[in-house]
Amino acid sequence: MATAGKVITCKAAVAYEPNKPLVIEDVQVAPPQAGEVRIKILFTALCHTDAYTWSGKDPEGLFPCILGHEAAGIVESVGEGVTEVQPGDHVIPCYQAECKECKFCKSGKTNLCGKVRMATGAGIMMNDRKSRFSINGKPIYHFMGTSTFSQYTVVHDVSVAKVDLQAPLDKVCLLGCGVPTGLGAVWNTAKVEPGAIVAIFGLGTVGLAVAEGAKSAGALRVIGVDIDSKKFDIAKNFGVTEFVNPKDYDKPIQQVLVDLTDGGVDYSFECIGNVSVMRAALECCHKGWGTSVIIGVAASGQEISTRPFQLVTGRVWKGTAFGGFKSRSQVPWLVDKYMKKEIKIDEYITHNLTLGEINKAFDLMHEGGCLRCVLKMHE
Amino acid sequence: MATAGKVITCKAAVAYEPNKPLVIEDVQVAPPQAGEVRIKILFTALCHTDAYTWSGKDPEGLFPCILGHEAAGIVESVGEGVTEVQPGDHVIPCYQAECKECKFCKSGKTNLCGKVRMATGAGIMMNDRKSRFSINGKPIYHFMGTSTFSQYTVVHDVSVAKVDLQAPLDKVCLLGCGVPTGLGAVWNTAKVEPGAIVAIFGLGTVGLAVAEGAKSAGALRVIGVDIDSKKFDIAKNFGVTEFVNPKDYDKPIQQVLVDLTDGGVDYSFECIGNVSVMRAALECCHKGWGTSVIIGVAASGQEISTRPFQLVTGRVWKGTAFGGFKSRSQVPWLVDKYMKKEIKIDEYITHNLTLGEINKAFDLMHEGGCLRCVLKMHE
Ligand SMILES: NC(=O)c1ccc[n+]([C@@H]2O[C@H](COP(=O)([O-])OP(=O)(O)OC[C@H]3O[C@@H](n4cnc5c(N)ncnc54)[C@H](O)[C@@H]3O)[C@@H](O)[C@H]2O)c1
Ligand SMILES: NC(=O)c1ccc[n+]([C@@H]2O[C@H](COP(=O)([O-])OP(=O)(O)OC[C@H]3O[C@@H](n4cnc5c(N)ncnc54)[C@H](O)[C@@H]3O)[C@@H](O)[C@H]2O)c1
Ligand SMILES: [Zn+2]
Ligand SMILES: [Zn+2]
Ligand SMILES: [Zn+2]
Ligand SMILES: [Zn+2]
Repeated sequence: MATAGKVITCKAAVAYEPNKPLVIEDVQVAPPQAGEVRIKILFTALCHTDAYTWSGKDPEGLFPCILGHEAAGIVESVGEGVTEVQPGDHVIPCYQAECKECKFCKSGKTNLCGKVRMATGAGIMMNDRKSRFSINGKPIYHFMGTSTFSQYTVVHDVSVAKVDLQAPLDKVCLLGCGVPTGLGAVWNTAKVEPGAIVAIFGLGTVGLAVAEGAKSAGALRVIGVDIDSKKFDIAKNFGVTEFVNPKDYDKPIQQVLVDLTDGGVDYSFECIGNVSVMRAALECCHKGWGTSVIIGVAASGQEISTRPFQLVTGRVWKGTAFGGFKSRSQVPWLVDKYMKKEIKIDEYITHNLTLGEINKAFDLMHEGGCLRCVLKMHE
Repeated sequence: MATAGKVITCKAAVAYEPNKPLVIEDVQVAPPQAGEVRIKILFTALCHTDAYTWSGKDPEGLFPCILGHEAAGIVESVGEGVTEVQPGDHVIPCYQAECKECKFCKSGKTNLCGKVRMATGAGIMMNDRKSRFSINGKPIYHFMGTSTFSQYTVVHDVSVAKVDLQAPLDKVCLLGCGVPTGLGAVWNTAKVEPGAIVAIFGLGTVGLAVAEGAKSAGALRVIGVDIDSKKFDIAKNFGVTEFVNPKDYDKPIQQVLVDLTDGGVDYSFECIGNVSVMRAALECCHKGWGTSVIIGVAASGQEISTRPFQLVTGRVWKGTAFGGFKSRSQVPWLVDKYMKKEIKIDEYITHNLTLGEINKAFDLMHEGGCLRCVLKMHE
């Protein structure tokens, strides 16, 4: 490609300060170094983790930075030693890397690869511990190792999933975060079995993906819990069979669910990020075996609590990151499942905008009617 | 037997009030009703749950009552419909019943049988919702469905494990609670695998049984944590390979363990009943897969807490009751393992006293040198 080895100047949405509108800037994107991949981002969606860091509540948030981590694009060029992708490949950047070599990857017990974590946590690239983004020489931090709110981004090669060339990138970009998180929480973390009773707290994209996963796992009852009753109509299409609005009851929501299910649910999922709801989700589980999975990300400093008796009598408390999926190995498999119509994606996309409209997209996110908003990155 | 069908008057240690010395009394023990078994208790040990209820801190404790739940004896007579044991059988009363018919037993997922739980929780027998113990017509409550601090007791048939006639009852009485709890926490609840790194908080009987279970499961490192350094010498014999006294460090104990193990342990067990230690036990687990099992019973009203991030990054929080063992099915199997010298029991018995010395036995329990004190019930 004509651009390979050269700095690319392109548009990106820069977060200069917490809570201040993102600014569309001309950003210089340096060529990929050893073990790095430069990607032309075609589509990106917005996720709550972007909003969380942008809000300034994330104590590890670094500014100025380029947010974004749910996207799809095309490899523009690769750095030295990169063998698994080449220019022209269609890819999904993955905030959860998979190196296949570290203690975590080799354990067979987790998807939390540790290889580039120190660098991505510090908003830089591992090779020279510097950023590839700059504006007139002033560096801009990376975010989650992905920074997809830029027309071009540079990521570590262990953070790139190569996907089917036929897959529509304006759809499969969602496989970068929310949808796999919900599906995997059911399939990998909880391992829901046929006939199970499931409760889902929060029916946003993640909660709906949990519902879809539970339905496909053969759950008998899928109880959706949300304070916004409007969510129920759409939730039905994703497999939710019953709906409970905590506002309709005087008793604690855990008691409502225990009563509805003759003792509690087999599996519960917290898809909100609210520590009181996390407790309710655990406590609505059936004695002896009920398992609760935390997916929502709580504000920094907040803690969960319960009586230890809840665990001594057989409940299990877990959590999940990216649904336990190994990103490079399994995101392509999820793309294939979508192509075979075995999982939904289109139904989660409620809005389509452009990069220039990104601040509007964030506003939409806080409105009840929005699940995912996909931004077109190039006119 | 000459006593069958008749009230038996015998000695028992009665707890009249919280914290007041137990009183050795002549107690009337009514004959077993339908589905009940009257047992001549030969040996009983003391456990912390007895002390906890006796202390008055257990909000469900009922007085006057006859405590005790770690014992062995001989069936004296059985009530109508009892088919699985008969007079003369050697048995271990089990506070955790196993009916093989209820939702819990049939789930295959838990040992927490629900059949007689309401009755045992209320200190009575299910058949007529009354106690079988009385003194001059005044009823005395049962405790945990076992009440083994009496020369004769009446239990539900679903709470009796029939064991090898050759097994020494002055030893296998320990299989009524503490030892199976520790072994089962490792084998059933955590499922520790060969090569694992294990941390044990608290090296009393339960913690030492965890060590023994971990060793037999092939754990590579078994790190014992106790504030009493004297515990280490004995702990070595049970499989503890390293010892950490939190008092020797300035940093939090979870950090000490993370540093010692290059990232955290694979499994941890809390065998104390201290909610701060429960948190430490979770947080010393390795990111991605570390599993912490709560065994200790915390004081009523106390709560555990942590940051949800601990779970989202792959740690699992569990608990166990009676080590997950199905009592009637598996206690006899544990007895057989002891007879084949595959598990220790004798080594946990540091003191032998008589029923008349029970208050002294409770005093001993609070001294560092005591693991289990076994009482001979008949002169
Ligand atoms: N663990 C991971 O890997 C991972 C990945 C992606 C997202 N997340 C997190 O998952 C959470 C959900 O993401 P999303 O995109 O679906 O969010 P969302 O905001 O679209 O959905 C949240 C839903 O919860 C409902 N809700 C809010 N408070 C509630 C309450 N008290 N009781 C019941 N319902 C309530 C809202 O009405 C909404 O429908 C977020 O915290 C996000 O950061 C975690
Ligand atoms: N879940 C169950 O089914 C079950 C069954 C039996 C016993 N238990 C509970 O298990 C716990 C242990 O029983 P046990 O008989 O082994 O008790 P124990 O008192 O003999 O042993 C406790 C040990 O913990 C140590 N310890 C105390 N505070 C400590 C601290 N802050 N840090 C490190 N070590 C500390 C003590 O020095 C002692 O060695 C009790 O709470 C008991 O009620 C639970
Ligand atoms: Zn996300
Ligand atoms: Zn790795
Ligand atoms: Zn006990
Ligand atoms: Zn049962």
